[in-house]
Amino acid sequence: MAGESLYFDSADFEGWESRYRANFINSLGGFKSFNLLISRNSEGVLNAAPFFSVQHIGSNPPLLSLIFRPHTVERHSLENFRTSGLATINAVSAEIVDQAHQAAAKYPRHISELEAVGLSAIQRDFTIPYLKESHLGIGVQWVSEQRIHANNTLLVVASIKEVHLSKPEALIEDGLIEQHRLNTVSVNGLDTYYMPQPLKRLAYPEPDLKPKEKAWPKKN
Amino acid sequence: MAGESLYFDSADFEGWESRYRANFINSLGGFKSFNLLISRNSEGVLNAAPFFSVQHIGSNPPLLSLIFRPHTVERHSLENFRTSGLATINAVSAEIVDQAHQAAAKYPRHISELEAVGLSAIQRDFTIPYLKESHLGIGVQWVSEQRIHANNTLLVVASIKEVHLSKPEALIEDGLIEQHRLNTVSVNGLDTYYMPQPLKRLAYPEPDLKPKEKAWPKKN
Repeated sequence: MAGESLYFDSADFEGWESRYRANFINSLGGFKSFNLLISRNSEGVLNAAPFFSVQHIGSNPPLLSLIFRPHTVERHSLENFRTSGLATINAVSAEIVDQAHQAAAKYPRHISELEAVGLSAIQRDFTIPYLKESHLGIGVQWVSEQRIHANNTLLVVASIKEVHLSKPEALIEDGLIEQHRLNTVSVNGLDTYYMPQPLKRLAYPEPDLKPKEKAWPKKN
Repeated sequence: MAGESLYFDSADFEGWESRYRANFINSLGGFKSFNLLISRNSEGVLNAAPFFSVQHIGSNPPLLSLIFRPHTVERHSLENFRTSGLATINAVSAEIVDQAHQAAAKYPRHISELEAVGLSAIQRDFTIPYLKESHLGIGVQWVSEQRIHANNTLLVVASIKEVHLSKPEALIEDGLIEQHRLNTVSVNGLDTYYMPQPLKRLAYPEPDLKPKEKAWPKKN
């Protein structure tokens, strides 16, 4: 069959069984990030929810966004984050991918996913604890929420207040945090995890110049 | 210095030189996707713009989103997409990462980035052509735009109308498109490209079960 191109359209999408459609559509956009959001509810229980939708929104001021789907387990996180105004976002590395994936299970509200899956929290100066097993933690503050009317999902924008990096060697001289030095995983679709390997860095593109590789001081 | 944890906060972010800050903040969220958006302006010139912000929004109906920053080269794409209502989103593989990166250069509006960087378009039944060199093309229709007020970026939601996959062997039996079989790259920060390597697939998580690997019929 290799070599023959495949074509699918709306009639195919609508005809598929829902899990097949979810796998297909979720894998279309390409590789995604994997982070664990930690929040705290009014009874003090820590909630941890895996997210594939942490996205860069701007550097100045430093902003990111998250997508919350309607009626899923992430609603606990949404309520906690909205109410307290604070949360932490923690990079998921290969060492803890099983536990982070498991945190998506539908545990009752009074159970902390962290304990249930065998991960732990570390309290720093920030109000909300970080994931102890993560090499990169971001303390964020709630900015706004807006509904995406097409399917009732919510886009939440958060402001980056602080960053903890437990592997200083991952930060290189131009400000880049080399995520592969943290063993950070990437995800395709809903459940398929990858380890990204360095390919190349490219210089800032100019119309009158050819693409040029940029020095990568310690690529491997 | 290894082993000693690093900490940064708003005072650091504000004090940094803007390129350093952009590299740092852009790399925080983790690995991102890399796609080329093709649109056509009213004079018939094809525009191609690289995006790290294609994001899954929903499977039923199939929706994705893109982030457009204010006052950048992407504005041409935004205007074209908004006006015509159609565009194609094309996965960037390792073979064309230089050209796709170069498409971000500030070419004048009457010049097609595709020609300028040495890529080509292929016209199929869809109104907007696809990137010939891409293994995965998504035909999308404009749904809505909404402003993210915190920094004046735009979130554009698009409906997935059709999909072309030139490597049928990348589609496996549960609907997943194995992006690594298309040599699709991932990006960290603004300019640092990676090749994701298969790690594992995990079964749907249940509160009373331990994390379990899912069969990956042809992982390597």
